[in-house]
Amino acid sequence: MNSRRDFLQKLTAATIVLPSLPACASGSSKGPSMKSYDGPVLRVAIMGLGSYGTRVAEAMQSCRKAKLVGVISGTPSKIKAWQAKYNIPEKNCYNYENFDSIKDNPDIDAVYVITPNALHHDQVIRVAKAGKHAISEKPMAVNAKEAQEMIDACKNANVKLLVGYRMHFEPHTLEIIRMRKAGDFGKIMFFQGLSGFVIGDPKQWRLNKQLSGGGAMMDIGIYSINGSRYMTGEEPVWVTAEETKTDPEKFKEGVDETIQFQLGFSSGAVASCLSTYKMNFLDRFFLNGEKGFAELNPATGYGPIEGRTNKGELKQPIVTHQTVQMDEMSDIILKGKQPIVPVDGQEALKDLKIIDAIYLAVKTGKKVDLAV
Amino acid sequence: MNSRRDFLQKLTAATIVLPSLPACASGSSKGPSMKSYDGPVLRVAIMGLGSYGTRVAEAMQSCRKAKLVGVISGTPSKIKAWQAKYNIPEKNCYNYENFDSIKDNPDIDAVYVITPNALHHDQVIRVAKAGKHAISEKPMAVNAKEAQEMIDACKNANVKLLVGYRMHFEPHTLEIIRMRKAGDFGKIMFFQGLSGFVIGDPKQWRLNKQLSGGGAMMDIGIYSINGSRYMTGEEPVWVTAEETKTDPEKFKEGVDETIQFQLGFSSGAVASCLSTYKMNFLDRFFLNGEKGFAELNPATGYGPIEGRTNKGELKQPIVTHQTVQMDEMSDIILKGKQPIVPVDGQEALKDLKIIDAIYLAVKTGKKVDLAV
Repeated sequence: MNSRRDFLQKLTAATIVLPSLPACASGSSKGPSMKSYDGPVLRVAIMGLGSYGTRVAEAMQSCRKAKLVGVISGTPSKIKAWQAKYNIPEKNCYNYENFDSIKDNPDIDAVYVITPNALHHDQVIRVAKAGKHAISEKPMAVNAKEAQEMIDACKNANVKLLVGYRMHFEPHTLEIIRMRKAGDFGKIMFFQGLSGFVIGDPKQWRLNKQLSGGGAMMDIGIYSINGSRYMTGEEPVWVTAEETKTDPEKFKEGVDETIQFQLGFSSGAVASCLSTYKMNFLDRFFLNGEKGFAELNPATGYGPIEGRTNKGELKQPIVTHQTVQMDEMSDIILKGKQPIVPVDGQEALKDLKIIDAIYLAVKTGKKVDLAV
Repeated sequence: MNSRRDFLQKLTAATIVLPSLPACASGSSKGPSMKSYDGPVLRVAIMGLGSYGTRVAEAMQSCRKAKLVGVISGTPSKIKAWQAKYNIPEKNCYNYENFDSIKDNPDIDAVYVITPNALHHDQVIRVAKAGKHAISEKPMAVNAKEAQEMIDACKNANVKLLVGYRMHFEPHTLEIIRMRKAGDFGKIMFFQGLSGFVIGDPKQWRLNKQLSGGGAMMDIGIYSINGSRYMTGEEPVWVTAEETKTDPEKFKEGVDETIQFQLGFSSGAVASCLSTYKMNFLDRFFLNGEKGFAELNPATGYGPIEGRTNKGELKQPIVTHQTVQMDEMSDIILKGKQPIVPVDGQEALKDLKIIDAIYLAVKTGKKVDLAV
């Protein structure tokens, strides 16, 4: 049985949870892992209590700087179960009709929107209008236009807008970025990202264009898009793309099954990537520079990330991505910390402009120039 | 100092030469390595005494079924040196003006043409007209039209035409092909080939369009093209491609520096490949099926090939490619043996049709359909 969760946990018997690990990705404290924290804590409500929302909630139990304090769901039985499990007071529970009233709740700082992609736009804007910081799962929206509207709404409401780019805090990933910035690989020439898994249940929302906004590209291809940017440290200036669909019954109009896409960067570096719902356990990044290389495999799954460079195997801490992400997001929101790789709305907008361009390139069969 | 030879010997301190190893790639004799051979021996003249010709000559010293008996060169001093080293009689030495008279030499069976790409066409046709079997280094020609003419000429002269596809006899490569045919990887979905090195001396013939017929694609990209076919076991039905040129001084008009190309197969499998003269030590193949994967890295260099599949590391014999190739070609020419993967003119024609299509796709920016 193949499912998205199975994929992301891939090849690893179990995600190694180190509940006491500090947010070491930030390069901060290396002291005793249970070191007490007496700074401000980000109080978070999760919107959407599905499988990923559940994963985030579990991971947040190990957070020091963030705490799950509320829920927003359309399913009363789920709310009850979460209340019991996470000790959530009744007054912090909302449904999709009444959650605008969260503006009157002083005990919630931020809402983490973990709902189907196409709903993020309206929900994030409602969160912003309620005066709460918004964290959106990725893709933040289903196109760049919506992303810009979300950015504008959060700016107007004077709240932060962050996106669940958990890899931006992952130690192996950050070590490669550090090495690249230090010049260890020389001039960057090539990035390759292969992102895919075999999607299961044909009735799930991820295969419903109205809810997903697309197919594999929105869900898993975005890892290669985003990876091409943080691994190379550059923004692409052109895109070409080719779509292959072998199962039009399962992957209906507007739901992409397999897309190869190529990116060009102004330095002359290029990227060749694959996004697919038809191949299992495909989660490989490869970065090639004039002096060295780096590879991650798996590169973005929930389980331990593994990698090596021309200098040998990467030996970084294994962390629970969502734990580190939420602790770091607490510092970003409450202390104005600047993450090494941005996780804000502008970052998501850049990815969505590329996704728009990929879909356009597929449609026209032509190279699409990306306006800087 | 980067050179093509350095690249192909890459990362290995030295090519491991096993002079006594039988042609184990053929799956034949597994007996004592010095087992005597009393069958027919292919008597070969090498045309073009450059670095690769030298490598082939050295490797042939370990052949049991093929023997270097003649030379064709425009440089008298080279001929003298080779005569001394390989005990070549004066009567088996030719230059580019007089080699047609090889037709009157009963002591030479075949001529291995190892000259600049653009010369293969005329030279192979002259060899055929002289009634000798022709072995051409790859690319066999600089386009499909020339390739067809060479095939026709050899057919008309009733001689064999083979091409130096040494990987077609390489044990790790053949083991993956065996596993793929046995269904070990399930339905094949994706191939990735990355082929490149940083080319040195800007004055070498490989960067002269008149002699090379192109750039990196002709020289090293062809490994990914050919690999996409023998690894997947399919022929592509479409091609897209993007060229990037960062150094137009070194890589003049018609000499490609970096090309990304994508192939689609009728099964729905796809390939994403890179051909480049601007990145070092890039020699990776990855084959992904519904049930498993295989990877080779290095995949095509002269040194030991290394690979693994989902079942673990490949443990195949390390062979000197050119030794095995020439022993196998002896059996193909003299005994009518059918190799596991073809090495004839038709095989080269298929690659050249793809190269033609890649160059057309680069020029037009459009997907090119490959007529079956």
